[in-house]
Amino acid sequence: MTIRANSAAKGKKIMAAQKKALLDQMNMAATVGVGALGLLGKAAPWMGLLMMAALPTVASAQQQDAEYYVQEKRFGEQWAAEDKQVRDKLAALEKKFGKKPNVIYILADDTGYTELGAYGGGIRGFKTPNLDQMARTGMRFQSYYSQPACTTTRIALQTGRFPVRVGISGILMPGTHGAGLTNYEVTIAEVLSEAGYTTAMYGKWHMGGSLDDQEYIPTNNGYDEAEWSEGNPLWWGYNKGVKPTDRDGYMTRAHFTWPPGPDAQPWDLGGVMRAIKGGKPEIVYPYSIEKYNSYDTEVADNTIDFIKRSARGDKPFFVYYAGKGNHFFGANPKFMNTPAGTNNAAQMTEHDYNVGRVLDTLKELGIEENTLVIWSSDNGPMYAMHPHGGYSLLKGEKSETWEGGIRVPAIAWWPGMIEAFQEPDGIVDVTDWFTTVASIAGVKDKIPNDRVTDGVDQSSLLLLEKVKSRRDWNFHYNHSGLEAVRKDQIKFRLPSAPSEPTFSLDSAHHYFYNLYYDPGERFPNMVEIGLWAGPAFQKIIQDHKKMIEKFPHQKAQPGYKVEFDYPFDPDPTK
Amino acid sequence: MTIRANSAAKGKKIMAAQKKALLDQMNMAATVGVGALGLLGKAAPWMGLLMMAALPTVASAQQQDAEYYVQEKRFGEQWAAEDKQVRDKLAALEKKFGKKPNVIYILADDTGYTELGAYGGGIRGFKTPNLDQMARTGMRFQSYYSQPACTTTRIALQTGRFPVRVGISGILMPGTHGAGLTNYEVTIAEVLSEAGYTTAMYGKWHMGGSLDDQEYIPTNNGYDEAEWSEGNPLWWGYNKGVKPTDRDGYMTRAHFTWPPGPDAQPWDLGGVMRAIKGGKPEIVYPYSIEKYNSYDTEVADNTIDFIKRSARGDKPFFVYYAGKGNHFFGANPKFMNTPAGTNNAAQMTEHDYNVGRVLDTLKELGIEENTLVIWSSDNGPMYAMHPHGGYSLLKGEKSETWEGGIRVPAIAWWPGMIEAFQEPDGIVDVTDWFTTVASIAGVKDKIPNDRVTDGVDQSSLLLLEKVKSRRDWNFHYNHSGLEAVRKDQIKFRLPSAPSEPTFSLDSAHHYFYNLYYDPGERFPNMVEIGLWAGPAFQKIIQDHKKMIEKFPHQKAQPGYKVEFDYPFDPDPTK
Repeated sequence: MTIRANSAAKGKKIMAAQKKALLDQMNMAATVGVGALGLLGKAAPWMGLLMMAALPTVASAQQQDAEYYVQEKRFGEQWAAEDKQVRDKLAALEKKFGKKPNVIYILADDTGYTELGAYGGGIRGFKTPNLDQMARTGMRFQSYYSQPACTTTRIALQTGRFPVRVGISGILMPGTHGAGLTNYEVTIAEVLSEAGYTTAMYGKWHMGGSLDDQEYIPTNNGYDEAEWSEGNPLWWGYNKGVKPTDRDGYMTRAHFTWPPGPDAQPWDLGGVMRAIKGGKPEIVYPYSIEKYNSYDTEVADNTIDFIKRSARGDKPFFVYYAGKGNHFFGANPKFMNTPAGTNNAAQMTEHDYNVGRVLDTLKELGIEENTLVIWSSDNGPMYAMHPHGGYSLLKGEKSETWEGGIRVPAIAWWPGMIEAFQEPDGIVDVTDWFTTVASIAGVKDKIPNDRVTDGVDQSSLLLLEKVKSRRDWNFHYNHSGLEAVRKDQIKFRLPSAPSEPTFSLDSAHHYFYNLYYDPGERFPNMVEIGLWAGPAFQKIIQDHKKMIEKFPHQKAQPGYKVEFDYPFDPDPTK
Repeated sequence: MTIRANSAAKGKKIMAAQKKALLDQMNMAATVGVGALGLLGKAAPWMGLLMMAALPTVASAQQQDAEYYVQEKRFGEQWAAEDKQVRDKLAALEKKFGKKPNVIYILADDTGYTELGAYGGGIRGFKTPNLDQMARTGMRFQSYYSQPACTTTRIALQTGRFPVRVGISGILMPGTHGAGLTNYEVTIAEVLSEAGYTTAMYGKWHMGGSLDDQEYIPTNNGYDEAEWSEGNPLWWGYNKGVKPTDRDGYMTRAHFTWPPGPDAQPWDLGGVMRAIKGGKPEIVYPYSIEKYNSYDTEVADNTIDFIKRSARGDKPFFVYYAGKGNHFFGANPKFMNTPAGTNNAAQMTEHDYNVGRVLDTLKELGIEENTLVIWSSDNGPMYAMHPHGGYSLLKGEKSETWEGGIRVPAIAWWPGMIEAFQEPDGIVDVTDWFTTVASIAGVKDKIPNDRVTDGVDQSSLLLLEKVKSRRDWNFHYNHSGLEAVRKDQIKFRLPSAPSEPTFSLDSAHHYFYNLYYDPGERFPNMVEIGLWAGPAFQKIIQDHKKMIEKFPHQKAQPGYKVEFDYPFDPDPTK
């Protein structure tokens, strides 16, 4: 933990102006909430679920956000009984296998909610038979939320915290330095290391970390070994030596050339890196389009190799397989024969094949009943490259907090432990995996309590039958702004969120959607929902804000902020 | 067949002006197609599938539309081999059970593509466990098309013909007389009767037919027995004696009161009717909101009673269960306890329960392996009553030919005959059931050949493994206008189709969608698709038009036309 100590002091500082700006923004939201106070005399059926939030009074190893304690107060007794059953079930398994369960996290890229056959997909000219089978023989989440972008979802997954708390709130782009996953943060790999796990990471890291920025690399954040790419296709296509005419799937690099042309951008963006914990990272090979084509399969190869090496050891393992960026170019020639004939279809076919290989490996090794496999997408699709990017029938896209940007497919698979054909529609957030996996590994007490960790323990949802999600709320940030709050079936879209071009109920642009009525967010409703929900959401946001005052965000990282974030200015006249 | 003879002569007459108008409209479409001729020098990958259509040269009992013969020419030999396998498989089954297989058709109402868990649904505050299980243990169609409205889908289902050919092209409303399913048409019940089936119909008929219009009733169109409602909730809610304050689910009849108030509309709309073949229909009870609440369960009760009575007989049976109108009011109090708390959620829950009861009945009787059960929706949702109507994540709604209006969920279930977990994405049209069921019953030769029947025999798709749909095209009419043509993955939207308010590529408003790229129809594409597809679609439409010249439509039925159809005027200056 020496690396973490280096930046802990730095990380605790917050620019006063920055903090004030955020609080001002939250205040504005709360004021608008008051404007939407209930005017009618009756309550909607779901109103009983909107309880008043309160600051925590119960001692807990993990510091949660305020709304959690509202739920704990209601359901704490029931949760304790469930937790007992979960512990018994895990103890029986540990007795059988002689060690704690392995954990595999597979993160897919830009895969929209409706892309898998198991999610009503299979209509876009490619099939996902392995993921569909995984969903059918496991748990398919129906209200699973990521962050709206690659980097932020990865931060949330590693730390169990909303990225805005970590100081990173957008996508890190090629050439960014001095920004990334700092050692102040405690990662899932660090927590599992304390539980005795062997840990590894392969694939698209995208949380900073080059040869110049070693604080941020995987092996300085809890992973025993790693081989990773710094980020997206851009790194691979814009690196020095990549010819603009190189064909990659159905597009060439020339499609992405920035004036005044490719020769003006001889960037040295490095290459795929490799390191072991405590060692120096080295470049395995430079980024190139040719290598990018089959990168998902290479990442799967590395993952499978690690699984085979680790399966027979005394220690359980954790491996994080972050699949290839699925945005535009990068089609493996072996998988291009799809009916759709798009790069995305080739990539989805390849990734599905690789997920199947990972699950087959577990079966071949006879460890599938002692291995939890989690699969999810990092965010919704990006339409800038349509039709070569992903797709979602939900509204909106990556970088937005409409459902299409953040509600994504997610599957948990664990034969013998997770029942088949489960399709919970309770809210689950990407941060929940942090706390859930720590709980399953028996090290929830290693989660720091000097900061808010947003993850909620969902191990009872996974392992017991007819149990509900412990989260019926969520906060949807985009960059450093809070854009939406979910509570039960209602989504409140704040005045600061970008509005639809063709819709304005009033000048403040705040509206409510009932996601049971209207998962496509087409029918904002003030009369039936909004007037009633106003006070409840106001309270939820106020208590969330109080918790930020008590546990302030980490400093917004300047390398990122200067180059890519939205302006963050508390003065609305500017 | 005496009843049919009465109207056969009448039905063959076509108003010259009516015919000319249609042909003029088709010509306009073809001309615009010419304007979109290919200008670039290369072919898209899917272009090989766009074959030139030709008029039929092969003798066939059923007169098909032109594009069918294009497919037959390509795949005829393969189809013949498949048909041999299908016949063998059916012969083995008949040997086992001693009679032909039973057929049950369950038609749900206004259920959007994404409403079932098996279609990625289950996120709207209700569950469909029985339909999901039916889909998982059978075949779930991914590109299944209905007509855009209740009446027209029912016409297509009964006759295997596009409703425009039949002379009915929109919804029949309360009070319409002199319009309906004429006896000139040959229904699926008539064809199956000739194969020795016992036939019955229960539920929402909606193809004309009151005590005054007996030509159109089920028992004069092939059904041995029937108990039916003339139509939609409107009949039930607007009938004499229904109080405007009667509460029905979450709404009252007062929600639907037309100025100058309910007392000005003491309409006598009749009631639920019952008849046996050759007998006079009688009213079982008058329409009322109270009875409407639980009508789907009553229809299921009647269906189950018929199944039990027919199961042990020597004859196979066919029963058509047309579920309750799912549009707005009419929630059964027993099923109102849903998380969503909408009328639609209650109705879906009730209908799913009833589908489960029907399947359970088959299992209890031990006849599930000799019974083909087909379930589908009649069209997409209607948003006028949101949130109490249905929903679809696809674009558009009932009464539109956007995918949301016509692409609907459909399931075929037949244990031992249809393999589980099948999810074909080939195009299947509601008319296909007519020809497919006739084929399975061994009476394809009873389909008349003096008219075009649009249904395509899909029995090989159902009964053999790894077989594709025999339809890779479709025509999407709305009322009497052709709005869209589908071929392979491309949908061509004609200039006469209503355009999006915010989109206009050119003054003619014709555009192409690749439904593999873009099932949500958000990204019309002229450059990558349209310029190339133009000539191919022009040819398909021209040949379709030639076939209409050869086999003209039945006369548009005046009762309907005057009151509810769009104006149909060949003079564009009017």
